[in-house]
Parts: sequence; structure tokens; C-alpha cells
Amino acid sequence: MNAEIIAVGTEILLGQITNTNARYLSEQLAVAGVNVFFHQVVGDNMKRLTDAISLAQSRSDLIFLCGGLGPTEDDLTREALAAVLGRSLELDERVLEQLVQLFARLGREMTPNNRQQAMRIQGALILDNPRGTAPGQYVEAEGRHYVLLPGPPTEMIPMFVEQVLPLLHKLSGESQTIRNRVLRIFGLGEPAVETKVADLLESTNPTIASYASEGECKLRVTAKADSVEAADDLIAGLEMQVRERLGGFIYGVDDEKLPVVVGKQLIEKGLTLAVYEGVTGGVLTSMLHEYRGVSSYIKEAMVLADGELLKTRLGLREYKTLEERAGVIAEAMRRYAGADWAVAVSDLVTPNEGSAAANMRDVYFAVSGPQANDTKVVRIRGDQTQLRIRAAKHALHLLIQSMEA
Amino acid sequence: MNAEIIAVGTEILLGQITNTNARYLSEQLAVAGVNVFFHQVVGDNMKRLTDAISLAQSRSDLIFLCGGLGPTEDDLTREALAAVLGRSLELDERVLEQLVQLFARLGREMTPNNRQQAMRIQGALILDNPRGTAPGQYVEAEGRHYVLLPGPPTEMIPMFVEQVLPLLHKLSGESQTIRNRVLRIFGLGEPAVETKVADLLESTNPTIASYASEGECKLRVTAKADSVEAADDLIAGLEMQVRERLGGFIYGVDDEKLPVVVGKQLIEKGLTLAVYEGVTGGVLTSMLHEYRGVSSYIKEAMVLADGELLKTRLGLREYKTLEERAGVIAEAMRRYAGADWAVAVSDLVTPNEGSAAANMRDVYFAVSGPQANDTKVVRIRGDQTQLRIRAAKHALHLLIQSMEA
Repeated sequence: MNAEIIAVGTEILLGQITNTNARYLSEQLAVAGVNVFFHQVVGDNMKRLTDAISLAQSRSDLIFLCGGLGPTEDDLTREALAAVLGRSLELDERVLEQLVQLFARLGREMTPNNRQQAMRIQGALILDNPRGTAPGQYVEAEGRHYVLLPGPPTEMIPMFVEQVLPLLHKLSGESQTIRNRVLRIFGLGEPAVETKVADLLESTNPTIASYASEGECKLRVTAKADSVEAADDLIAGLEMQVRERLGGFIYGVDDEKLPVVVGKQLIEKGLTLAVYEGVTGGVLTSMLHEYRGVSSYIKEAMVLADGELLKTRLGLREYKTLEERAGVIAEAMRRYAGADWAVAVSDLVTPNEGSAAANMRDVYFAVSGPQANDTKVVRIRGDQTQLRIRAAKHALHLLIQSMEA
Repeated sequence: MNAEIIAVGTEILLGQITNTNARYLSEQLAVAGVNVFFHQVVGDNMKRLTDAISLAQSRSDLIFLCGGLGPTEDDLTREALAAVLGRSLELDERVLEQLVQLFARLGREMTPNNRQQAMRIQGALILDNPRGTAPGQYVEAEGRHYVLLPGPPTEMIPMFVEQVLPLLHKLSGESQTIRNRVLRIFGLGEPAVETKVADLLESTNPTIASYASEGECKLRVTAKADSVEAADDLIAGLEMQVRERLGGFIYGVDDEKLPVVVGKQLIEKGLTLAVYEGVTGGVLTSMLHEYRGVSSYIKEAMVLADGELLKTRLGLREYKTLEERAGVIAEAMRRYAGADWAVAVSDLVTPNEGSAAANMRDVYFAVSGPQANDTKVVRIRGDQTQLRIRAAKHALHLLIQSMEA
């Protein structure tokens, strides 16, 4: 089965947003064993949209349309697909009723425009959208499968996972089971990772592919077999080889992002955490909150801009270097909050020599815990936003390493 | 002149990388007044690539091809365009010489494959690439303009800015100036905004378009005229009409996001800010740090999970309701940090009645300042991540309104 992804929205063609939906769907489809041969992006224009759908129809079996399901005049996806298929749009009373109730609950006025979102293509299956006002739709016509998804990723992704993936499994009629495992790597760049596993990248079952993003790298291992157990065995064999080469750099698997690994370890041990943020400015604390259980272990997080206030609050003892200073802050923060562990990102960084143009700075990190105090300094490259994100990840990684030591 | 962007690379169709080049080029072209009507992505496959080029040729004047200029067998862009145009590929001695020198400088061996990168489409202009081994090319054929750019953004972007933009200005022969202004709206959804300015959306010069993202809405006004002044006058006229209808909901223009407006107001008045975050868990503070000047006005930010610790730190006085409690926290935080203003997002929320499924909660906000104390409660919908982002924006907006009052 060959798939094609059409993103609909003039804002993408104006460069106001990036087409991340196409990336997400492509990755998910690759994992599900579906080939994606084309992406298209078209604006909110009936002629160009119907042309794009007709083109996809001529060459792909499974066609995703993302966006254009809103209530405004510019939202043409339902209408365009109905026109190409020669089908009518019908008011779906159940969807309308859900919209009416939703607006009542929100205390917002429902405009006549919103009714448009309850229009269903004749013969389509509605994909419920509990997170927004635009339901998705699934239509089959002449051997082609069309999936209409809302544009906002926060609505599109759960709809895909919860409602479209199960549909795909039925459609594909694939008798073999496909299983995946993601190995999460921190502290080693993608080229270095690829060099270390170059020969394994040639493997055909399981396959292995690398993905890089914001200072992290992932290896995805995918196996096909007659049973879940057999597929998992294939994965385990390859994983062992990867771990022999990358061992210490692999910090988690699958959805275990850095904050999840931190959270799980602390909760398992029944320990608490305090956070002091300098240069990360709240990003570290907000990352920790990506793990739902955070409120059961985090005691206090502090972001201070004022060196005097820092001394007043924490009563810092003497230090000689900036790295030592980070350690002093972590210790003081741990004591102040009465937590088992504390992690600190220094408020001071030093620009790396001769690197002003390259935007490189040395950032100081420290962890203080029941058994150990650790510090590190890391040379980080990037603009202010990248610096905050990458520094926050380094802080989480140092915390994981210290807790495991 | 209508443009189209074709990104070439199987890694995009596998979801291994996001097509950020298309976004970058689209934004640059929009600013330059060039319409982009289509994006395509195709893999490293000769048939599909030549089909994509032929399609673009049939509907666009200016065609960008990004990627596929490397030295490997998979790099087919030069060959594919030459085939579509019926032109030959010729060895460019100057480019070859540059490659030989480059590899010598890098101390790397030049493989026979690398010679492929010195092949120029007959009649093409070479676009030098001082940052990599893949030069770009520009070809004109039968009234169509083709621009071949390397895939890595670090090579593509400077090549576009330094060599392609000057070319475009010559090509467009556009004597009119294009100007833009973005009006930023908070507290009103996109459908409601569009309803209020429905008639203005019909305007052709200036044009007006709406964009929504994460609880915010933007209106972009674009005018074309013989001079900057005339274009700005057109924009000012339409802006006045929009402001008459949406006045209080417009909080900033152009790049003035919520944290920027907060930061500018505080810095202008020489005032400081303290932050207490409950349910936002660090997101509010990290948003404030999107404004570079933040360290000059933020005194202290605190994220606490522990109600007892909150009383110890801030010494809360009596309160009756959760909204009042938020106010008490804001006052206490302001005093504690010795700041001119404080903003607080309550650590307690109440699930909205019968709304568990819809993921709706009432969140409490408070601002305390030299002249005023304000509180509000907002019904916010979304998962934990959305809740944090939206709540943080509501806190910033309340702060702006209180400071303006």
C-alpha cells in the first residue's frame, strides 16, 4: 500500500508554520510498513486542492489530507474531497449535537460557521475529536482510502494513534507482525552514532534507522515476523549489538524521554527533587513537567536573575571556579528545599574563546544527592532558545547518571 | 510570478527529517512578494522526480529544487532536471577545480563520485557553495526559472540569501513595494475574529488573512504600492478598521509576542517582576525568557508543588475562594521577592463540572502591582501540555492588561 500526504493550508505556503504533520505521519507510516512516495502542500483554494487530490488519486492508495477542517470559509478540505469523489456533504446530527454541547460547556457562542464542521462526506466514517471542534473523516472510494485529519498536531496526533492506526492495520491485511523499539541516545551526535553502527544500518530485518533532534539522537529498530515474540526476539538480538557499541550513551527506550527516566527513578525510590535554574530560565522545570507524576517528587524550583537575592535565599559558601559555584548552588538548593536530590544550572556562562561567531558557550551543571555530588561543564552551541533546551537536557542527563552511579 | 518548491530526499518521506527548507523559502518568497502555490516532496527516484518536475513546469514560473545534489548514486536532481529539459550535463572545469582544492584543504580523498557534483546542466549558471561540496545551479528554459539548491539548511540558506535573492529581484521586475503588518490577538478564537472582520477579509489591497495557533490568533495585513509610505498608508487604513472592531483583543503587532509586550512595558518603566507558578510548572517563566531582556526585570520565579512549603516560604494570609487564594499568593510573592509586580498561576485547579472527558479545568490567575491587584478564573481546555501553555499565556495577558490599566 502506497501512501501520500497532502497538507492543506496557505499558512504553510507562506512559511508561517512548518509542515511537521507530514513528518509525523511519514515516520508513523514507515513504522507501520507503509511506503510514502509523495508529500504535497496546497493552499486554501478549491481548484488547486481538488487538483492535488486528483493527482494523489492517480498514484496512491492511501491519501492523508491534513488541515482545512475548521469552521471558516477557507476550510475547504471536506468540500474538495466530496467534489473529487462526486459525493454530497450531509449534516451529521451526532457531530452537530457534540459541537452544540461542547460550545455550551466552553461557555462560547457557536457561530453558524461552526455547523460546517458537522458536515460529513457521504459514506464517510467520522473520527471523533475530543480535543477540538474539527472531527476527522475516513472515506473509501474505488479502492482508494482517504483520511481527513485536523491541522493542529495536538488534535491530529491522538486522532491518528487512537483511530487511524487501528484502521490501517485492518486495511493493510499484513499477516506478519511489525514491532519497533526506539533506543534513546544522549551525548553523541548522529554522524558519530551512524559511524559506530554503520554495518548494522545495512540489516534488512530488523531494520535500523537514525533520527536526530535538538541534541538528541534516536535509533529505531523495526522487525517483521510471524508472531510478536519472534519479532521481539529479532529486535533483542540487534539491540544487544547496538548496546555493545553505544552502551553508556543509551539512556532510555521508546517513550522514555529524559524527564520520564528522571521521574521514574525518583518515584521508584520515593525520593524528592529540587531545581535551581540559571541560564535555562524555566525550561528545565517545564521539561520535568512533561512527566505526569512530577508533582509527587518535585519540591521546589527556583529561577533567579539576581546574584544578591541568590545569596540571601540560599546562603552560598565560598567557591573558586564557576564549576565549583554550580556545585555550591546545588548543595544549597538541596538543603533549602529539604529535597533528596537537587540539580542546578548555573546562571553564569562563559563564551568560548574565539567562538563568538559560532555562538558557543560553556555552561556549568551540578547535582547534589544523598550519596554523590557531581558537576560538569559543557560547551553548547546555538542561539538562546537552543541553548536553554540543550542545557536543560544536559542537566537531566547529569541527574540520571548521578542517580545511577 | 508563481513559485513552487520541490524537496528531494527519501529521508523526508521516511519522516527522518522535517522539511524546514520549504518553510524557509516560503517565508522569504512571501516577503519578496512571490506567490508560492505548491510544495512537493519526492524521494530519490528518477521517475517520480522527473514527474514532479514536469508537473511543476506545467503550473509554476519559478521552481526550486532542494536536495539531491550530493555525490552519491541517490543524488539525482541534476540528472532529472536535465532530462526534463532535454539538455545535457557538462563537466564544469572551474567547479571541478574548486572541488579538488576543497578536498585537498580538508585532507580528504576525493572519490570519483565527487566529480558528479561538477556536472552542470547545459546553459546553467553555477551558484557557488563555499560551505559544502554541492554547488547550486540556476537555469532558465522556455520562460520557466529553475533553482537547484543543496539540502543542508546551513548551505542552502546563505546560498539563497547571497545569490538567489539578487537574482529574484532582477527576475520579478516588480516595481511595487510589498509591506506586511501582523496584528496579534488574545482572548478571542479564530472563528469569532473572522466573523467580526468578515467583510474586511474580502479586501484585495491590502489583503488580510487570519492565523491561529495555541490559543492565539494573528491577522496579517499585506499591501502593495508604489512606495513604502503608500503601502504603509494602505495598511494603516485597514488596521484602523480592524482595531475599531477588535480593539481590546489586540495586544501587539508584528514580532511582539506576549512575553515581548510584557518585557518592553516593564523595561520602559524600569519595573521588576516576580513569578509564582503552580499548574504551569515552569512554562510561564520559560516563555518570559523568550524575550532577551528578561534578566533585567525578572527578580525571582518559583514553582512549588508542596502546599506546606508554599505557606512556609510566602506566609499566606487567610482566603475564602480559590480565586482569592491566587490573589493572596501574588501579593505574597511580590512582597517576598521585593518586586514591583508579581503574577501568579494557582497550583490548584478545579475540573469543570461534567467535563472530565473534554479535559476542561478552571485555572486561577492573579496579578499584584503598585496600583492594582487583579484576579481572573479561566476555563481552559486541553491536555496537560496545552493547559500549561494556554494558562501561561493567560497569565501574561492578565499582566499586560493590569499594567495598561
